[in-house]
Amino acid sequence: MTTTSSDLYPVTRVAAVREAAAAAGIDALLLTPGPDLRYVSGYDAMPMERLTCLVVPAQGEAFMVVPRLELPAAEHSPAARLGLEFVAWDETDDPYALVASRIGSPATVGLADRMWAMQSLRFRSALPGAEQVLAGSVLSELRMRKSPAEVAALREAGAAIDAVHAQVPGLLKAGRTEREVGRDIAEAILAAGHATVDFVIVASGPNGASPHHELSDRVIRAGDPVVVDIGGQMPSGYCSDSTRVYSVGEPPADFAAYYEVLRRAQEAACAAVRPGVSCESVDAAARQIIADAGHGDLFIHRTGHGIGLETHEEPYIVSGNAEPLAPGFAFSVEPGIYLSGHHGARIEDIVVCTETGVERLNDQPRDLVVV
Amino acid sequence: MTTTSSDLYPVTRVAAVREAAAAAGIDALLLTPGPDLRYVSGYDAMPMERLTCLVVPAQGEAFMVVPRLELPAAEHSPAARLGLEFVAWDETDDPYALVASRIGSPATVGLADRMWAMQSLRFRSALPGAEQVLAGSVLSELRMRKSPAEVAALREAGAAIDAVHAQVPGLLKAGRTEREVGRDIAEAILAAGHATVDFVIVASGPNGASPHHELSDRVIRAGDPVVVDIGGQMPSGYCSDSTRVYSVGEPPADFAAYYEVLRRAQEAACAAVRPGVSCESVDAAARQIIADAGHGDLFIHRTGHGIGLETHEEPYIVSGNAEPLAPGFAFSVEPGIYLSGHHGARIEDIVVCTETGVERLNDQPRDLVVV
Repeated sequence: MTTTSSDLYPVTRVAAVREAAAAAGIDALLLTPGPDLRYVSGYDAMPMERLTCLVVPAQGEAFMVVPRLELPAAEHSPAARLGLEFVAWDETDDPYALVASRIGSPATVGLADRMWAMQSLRFRSALPGAEQVLAGSVLSELRMRKSPAEVAALREAGAAIDAVHAQVPGLLKAGRTEREVGRDIAEAILAAGHATVDFVIVASGPNGASPHHELSDRVIRAGDPVVVDIGGQMPSGYCSDSTRVYSVGEPPADFAAYYEVLRRAQEAACAAVRPGVSCESVDAAARQIIADAGHGDLFIHRTGHGIGLETHEEPYIVSGNAEPLAPGFAFSVEPGIYLSGHHGARIEDIVVCTETGVERLNDQPRDLVVV
Repeated sequence: MTTTSSDLYPVTRVAAVREAAAAAGIDALLLTPGPDLRYVSGYDAMPMERLTCLVVPAQGEAFMVVPRLELPAAEHSPAARLGLEFVAWDETDDPYALVASRIGSPATVGLADRMWAMQSLRFRSALPGAEQVLAGSVLSELRMRKSPAEVAALREAGAAIDAVHAQVPGLLKAGRTEREVGRDIAEAILAAGHATVDFVIVASGPNGASPHHELSDRVIRAGDPVVVDIGGQMPSGYCSDSTRVYSVGEPPADFAAYYEVLRRAQEAACAAVRPGVSCESVDAAARQIIADAGHGDLFIHRTGHGIGLETHEEPYIVSGNAEPLAPGFAFSVEPGIYLSGHHGARIEDIVVCTETGVERLNDQPRDLVVV
């Protein structure tokens, strides 16, 4: 169990979610452990092969199926505040048949977006008449609009990862490997108050041209730019994610030139954020500056992703997404420029759309940090 | 990327898996990031909303679909040794349609057991004629039989978590909270060489009666038994999992009495392990001793679970599982006794079935450790 609060996970959510499901023609939501379950109930259950499932029927009372050995954990979790029934099953019971026996013959069920195939296929057999759709088709709309308590939790996560970035210059030294530096960063992420380390990218020299490079045994050398993209999940459930670029000694001249373009692009995209502006136009704001400088084909990914109980969630800041921003939308702004075989750079902040504009949740210097 | 070796992830696996799929009537395996993908290819890709998928057709060449921004990571991963084609997709492409366009009209596809619903439902739409089954229906048989290299990796994981348990007596003190102790243990798990912390259960006093209790703000008091169940994943991909019980000062008399029963039960179950013995009879060996002592109804879970690239995988050591043990099967032996409202205990070792009997991979003292 982790820190929670009634503000962060209000007990009224089950009713709101039930209404949204009914309006969408979904007869029951089946929420297994993961961000959808946690959002609705506050319960941070570990995804496992044994079925834990919050069932939210469009008509009737919600209930939660739990393995008997996890009944005490469920009863002491925030889900206990919801006043719903816990239905425990024993090791040799069939929990899928148990769910089916209680919800009749739904025509449509909404599965947690991260439900494992080992579970969705069992539900398909146990409820052969039910069309399976994603619970996200109704939950995303709700989850995108962060409440003030959720924004506060993201702000806390942002401050925690900023505190780790503040330590990175002391950890980066020529002669150390990416893996050694990464290990230290992972420990610092926990020490800064995160409950888990979600990812640690330390991409030095040519590895910086691989956006999702993680850690290798490459020895960092003088003159290497190093992309450090790190994040974790706080006890609240909310995630951090921030990227800064460091240079071990003076970087190559061509690097410094495009880094400055990147910095302007990231700034422009942040400045574009306000209610009513589309997600794709935030992407375009960054992309235009990079393209104008002649590097358009080196920016090979979208500009950002929503963040909350997941590191990547809706809204995606990508060409083709016309969704207008609204107050409470929280997402990354992280353009990048990648020169295969040479080096790369990315600058990433989490931002929140406010009533009038934007709040940045990361505050470390965005200029290239030479260490 | 993490440590790997050709021994641990032999390049011959794709062919073995293809043959097994063909024999089972599966036209193509669709392996998204997770243990199934890593087992077959060695590639430790992070599960994400962007599709990465190793496609293994029963006829024809395997290929891997990857987001373009992860192409360099895939090309530098162990999967590169397989000589298969990487098919990169761009941010605004439809990677499900891309897979469908290359594999024709399969009648049956095998999904990675942990594939997210957000992906399995997209594959259902992209391949409307294909029945979806679990890839595990063919992979489990292979994954259960650990190779000597895999056993060596599990041995290394066992030694690492033993080194953490050796530090626990120094961390447990009356006056500290479970969460404080848990934080120290998480750092020690990383320092002992794990790549990630998978779970940290510190269940003191009455919390010990909740088998999957994690961490709370309960202050540990003199006289508390404390169940410490911890594990992580090594850079190799293989997992550790071990439970020991400590007592902060002398434990209650009734606790000491049933702890001794538990110790004998765990010993008996380990001693029962040898080729040909069924999984359920190992469970029965522990259960009988606990039942004979009059505590049968307090042992509320199965005796164990397989372990490898997942903390919980087949074989499950549970009543009803007649699967005979074979050399290379690796699993936990972890009976428990739980007195709701009072305290609880569990002793857990990972064991491997050998040609002639059993090897234990955990070696810390199993007697109650009074600190």
